[in-house]
Amino acid sequence: MSDSDASLSQASALAPWRSALARALHRNRSRPYSRYFQLATVTSSGRPANRTVVFRGWLPNSNTLTLITDQRSAKVADIVAHPWAEACWYFTDTREQFRLAGSIQVVTAEADPALLQARQNSWEALSDNARQQFYWPHPAQPRTAEADFSPKEIQATPPAEFCLVLLEPDQVDHLELRGEPQNRTLYDQQPGSTWQINAVNP
Amino acid sequence: MSDSDASLSQASALAPWRSALARALHRNRSRPYSRYFQLATVTSSGRPANRTVVFRGWLPNSNTLTLITDQRSAKVADIVAHPWAEACWYFTDTREQFRLAGSIQVVTAEADPALLQARQNSWEALSDNARQQFYWPHPAQPRTAEADFSPKEIQATPPAEFCLVLLEPDQVDHLELRGEPQNRTLYDQQPGSTWQINAVNP
Repeated sequence: MSDSDASLSQASALAPWRSALARALHRNRSRPYSRYFQLATVTSSGRPANRTVVFRGWLPNSNTLTLITDQRSAKVADIVAHPWAEACWYFTDTREQFRLAGSIQVVTAEADPALLQARQNSWEALSDNARQQFYWPHPAQPRTAEADFSPKEIQATPPAEFCLVLLEPDQVDHLELRGEPQNRTLYDQQPGSTWQINAVNP
Repeated sequence: MSDSDASLSQASALAPWRSALARALHRNRSRPYSRYFQLATVTSSGRPANRTVVFRGWLPNSNTLTLITDQRSAKVADIVAHPWAEACWYFTDTREQFRLAGSIQVVTAEADPALLQARQNSWEALSDNARQQFYWPHPAQPRTAEADFSPKEIQATPPAEFCLVLLEPDQVDHLELRGEPQNRTLYDQQPGSTWQINAVNP
């Protein structure tokens, strides 16, 4: 292994909270909504916004969560104004919560080549039903009788409306309600990418 | 009915989104976690924060949601810095989401008498297990072997740590994923408390 391989491997090492999250995803896998979480952002006017999104897997060789969105959706404007988010992910079967806070960015058709490839891969991984939604009329605009929701031919190249979103946590708060008392662990990323782990009071 | 009764009745009228939310709560009632939602706030440093909370019912004669929290929790400091929140409430059985945005306040032991009564009522409505948590050591502080989580005698008067939280929505976004296409309705409160209702594109 060359020196550059070694440093890449270090940079892409799994964060210590990844195994707990992988276990939660596995143990709650019978529920399709176990892949949904709530994403909080801050609007341009400084107010909080919050909506349910679908986890679309990890950016390869990273601890970055991916999701997708429509470029016309309000969260894109939020992220441009305030590139920070906190995901709140509650697993109903195992009764545990992960809060993942960190920087967030939107990958549009104008992104650099490496991220464009990730965007393309996400498009190809989507179901046809999910892809159709990016050809729908403008989200949150008044619904008219003429609005066209009919199926369109899906293109190999995603439309400009299709965006990948990257959340890179630098703080993770894991709460297990089933403990007696409950167990809570904080993971804080230090300068240099190492993680500090602390058991705290629930 | 006197004039003052009439105006009170108008002020306390159920908002038009209340029936849709009541229906969702009813149709998803077999799942205890249907009373959980995610509450987004903004921290004093301007970043979003997000956590799962439990719906504790309505403030009487209002459209204000109540929840409870520990005065030592980070969300209390968030709310003091930025008295705005958005709740995101996803119902897994009926596959619908309510986003409820509005002003938020914390009712401490120093509140005015009407709110103090609401705080007292919430304390009395809580299970013993839930009340015990307000006698626990400081949340999010390092957990030590000496930390005392043993059951305490519950007092009739809530401890200072016990806070009621009031969220008064002025914008509600109801999304039903089961529609074909999905149905989405926005409710915006106008000056004078009337609500504007718009069907919008999902």
